[in-house]
Amino acid sequence: MKSYAQMSREELSNELEALQKDYQSYVDMHLSLNMARGKPSSEQLDLSRPMLDVINSGSDLIASDGTDARNYGCLDGLPEAKKLMADMMDSKPDDMIIYGNSSLNIMFDQISRSYSFGVMGETPWCKLDQKVKWLCPVPGYDRHFGITEFFGFEMIPVEMSEEGPDMDKVEELVKDPMVKGIWCVPKYSNPGGVVYSDEVVKRLAALNPAAKDFRIYWDNAYCVHHLYDEEVEVLDILKACEAASHPDMVYKFGSTSKISFPGAGIAAMATSQANKEDILSKMTHQTIGHDKINQLRHVRFFKDIDGIKEHMKKHADIIRPKFEAVNAILEEYLGGLEVGEWTHPKGGYFISFTGLDHTAKRIVSLAKEAGVVMTGAGSTYPYKKDPKDSNIRIAPTLPPLEEIQMAAKLFTICVKIASIEVLMK
Amino acid sequence: MKSYAQMSREELSNELEALQKDYQSYVDMHLSLNMARGKPSSEQLDLSRPMLDVINSGSDLIASDGTDARNYGCLDGLPEAKKLMADMMDSKPDDMIIYGNSSLNIMFDQISRSYSFGVMGETPWCKLDQKVKWLCPVPGYDRHFGITEFFGFEMIPVEMSEEGPDMDKVEELVKDPMVKGIWCVPKYSNPGGVVYSDEVVKRLAALNPAAKDFRIYWDNAYCVHHLYDEEVEVLDILKACEAASHPDMVYKFGSTSKISFPGAGIAAMATSQANKEDILSKMTHQTIGHDKINQLRHVRFFKDIDGIKEHMKKHADIIRPKFEAVNAILEEYLGGLEVGEWTHPKGGYFISFTGLDHTAKRIVSLAKEAGVVMTGAGSTYPYKKDPKDSNIRIAPTLPPLEEIQMAAKLFTICVKIASIEVLMK
Repeated sequence: MKSYAQMSREELSNELEALQKDYQSYVDMHLSLNMARGKPSSEQLDLSRPMLDVINSGSDLIASDGTDARNYGCLDGLPEAKKLMADMMDSKPDDMIIYGNSSLNIMFDQISRSYSFGVMGETPWCKLDQKVKWLCPVPGYDRHFGITEFFGFEMIPVEMSEEGPDMDKVEELVKDPMVKGIWCVPKYSNPGGVVYSDEVVKRLAALNPAAKDFRIYWDNAYCVHHLYDEEVEVLDILKACEAASHPDMVYKFGSTSKISFPGAGIAAMATSQANKEDILSKMTHQTIGHDKINQLRHVRFFKDIDGIKEHMKKHADIIRPKFEAVNAILEEYLGGLEVGEWTHPKGGYFISFTGLDHTAKRIVSLAKEAGVVMTGAGSTYPYKKDPKDSNIRIAPTLPPLEEIQMAAKLFTICVKIASIEVLMK
Repeated sequence: MKSYAQMSREELSNELEALQKDYQSYVDMHLSLNMARGKPSSEQLDLSRPMLDVINSGSDLIASDGTDARNYGCLDGLPEAKKLMADMMDSKPDDMIIYGNSSLNIMFDQISRSYSFGVMGETPWCKLDQKVKWLCPVPGYDRHFGITEFFGFEMIPVEMSEEGPDMDKVEELVKDPMVKGIWCVPKYSNPGGVVYSDEVVKRLAALNPAAKDFRIYWDNAYCVHHLYDEEVEVLDILKACEAASHPDMVYKFGSTSKISFPGAGIAAMATSQANKEDILSKMTHQTIGHDKINQLRHVRFFKDIDGIKEHMKKHADIIRPKFEAVNAILEEYLGGLEVGEWTHPKGGYFISFTGLDHTAKRIVSLAKEAGVVMTGAGSTYPYKKDPKDSNIRIAPTLPPLEEIQMAAKLFTICVKIASIEVLMK
């Protein structure tokens, strides 16, 4: 097969004409499909329905430490919830703070606390004369960038490789005392599916940032979200930071959002004792405690980390075919054309597609006009500005398999059209 | 009976000696009782156990608007939850934002947003050269004062009468553009049990604060928390503000914390459309949505406002005898001695005791040494500074009736001892 680059203008022109007919046939179907958000499907959510039975009117609602889960109190969470989430997040129960239903909310609040009150006695960021700067490995998670943009921080993109963020650049950038943090999704990263290598984790832990209040925001959102039997492991950053004598340099975040229910899970942070003390001393003014009945519900349903792992295999069985179907269709229709590359993740929620320069916006726009919503082009970059306009995040989990297949086929047509348009300019 | 003021020093001295023996007999019992926090008792919490059955593995979890309550999304809450909370909070469903399990958290976050990002385009409070000032009706709720102290605001006490805060003073104080808010607990106030009069509500709504971003923080925590059949009503502040052409001047807060479960209820804000838009535009960076399964659980259990009212009667039946027992004991042991006054609330969670000047700390300390924990003296004032050192908040709901009686008796002995000590100085 000839790649598009090898084709003459006439060949491209003929190809474009044929593609436009194909495209029109999709438009005529009046589709309404969505590959935009990393949401579990209804079938996946059904897996956790039995969780709704483990707490009922007859249940013992006293936690292992005697706390009545129904009443006020217990700022950092029930002991059994700490144990469960610690095992999942590769930490000790003592490291944990259990929160409500959203790890995004924890991250926002952590930045908000740092902004208003400062980290461990350092100047609150809102009182600094200069803008706070934040390192943003790209492509990355749009909602992370959304938080740091909202707070008015200057976001500095750092390129991702197959190993994690470009550590030469990170090491250089943290010499600036205004650099206060870095977003990391260390396993099956959003959207690239990258797994941080041991070397990257160790270099992160060994960082010597100029800012005492620099923190690694370690969003291990997909820690147990494997697509295959292979359980990819990432070196634990908190232990690595301890080993490098920087025990306070990291906040680890996790949740059961894509394990139990995205709307009604539990979320947690793991960090050093000193960080935890700093955080709780401030959090105590914000709330008396989070939902402890839901903490008990999760503990009694999953029982332990093995219960979570078993449960995640059922998720994998549902979503793996969707990932594989997208891959097969991209391979079948785009293979050899040299119009783009895409990732083959072993876990997580996304496939990252990188097309020719200056095609991403056009592809997403074509798909939208034909009734398929993709994540906005540029969303995987700070300020939604993809300098090459080439990256698109594909989220295959939510729609049923047949819809995913149809959406993926349409997507390939859009890729081809946009690519020819660029090549013929 | 002679009041203490009428007694000679010798009579007082004899009385003190007898009291100290009584006191010692309590010390010898090694009590461990708690009248400190406004927490529901275990018996009250049992009332909501059936709520844990209304959502189970077989439940329809699709909300009335088609939202899957299990998944991400729905930033401002499910329509049926808005309806339920709106009816409870005397508002329209459109006014509502449904949050997580804590209205304190909503208030903290609302102040935090105003501090970091400003209210409706006004300068963020953290960027102002001068200190934000906040009006604090006293005595008031310690956790309210805790938030505004934590943010470094200057808290200005405003005396409460039987009608609500001293409105002459409030009207004068809001001429200062640095005054950005006022804490209000309009019904069965914490701790005084005060119900705001129509006139006070109207004068609040008619305020012309110098600060455009001045807001009334209307914490209607006890809106349906009647002790008797009489359902005391308070004029709705949002409607009053609309009528006074100040529709954006108030945030109303409420929760089911003392209706269902303090640890696992739902909380809400009601406010104008313009405020709501301002808030949601910022909240969207903080979270994708709160726990919607718990919203459904509450709606399906209570069904409607009548369900809530019926439920609250059962609460009242449990806690009314405790309030009455405390009152009877205070009357029996302190009546006629002229050593203090106390409130006779028709709802809410507290009795407010006001002793002789310079006795509160001593009373609380005596009680503590005998094994009865009271709310810290001064807690009902900003910076925990009660200028007269005379107010003590009594929280009778948590312990069983017999323990409350014992604690109340001990309390009267402590009051008498502290009063005589002051009178004999």
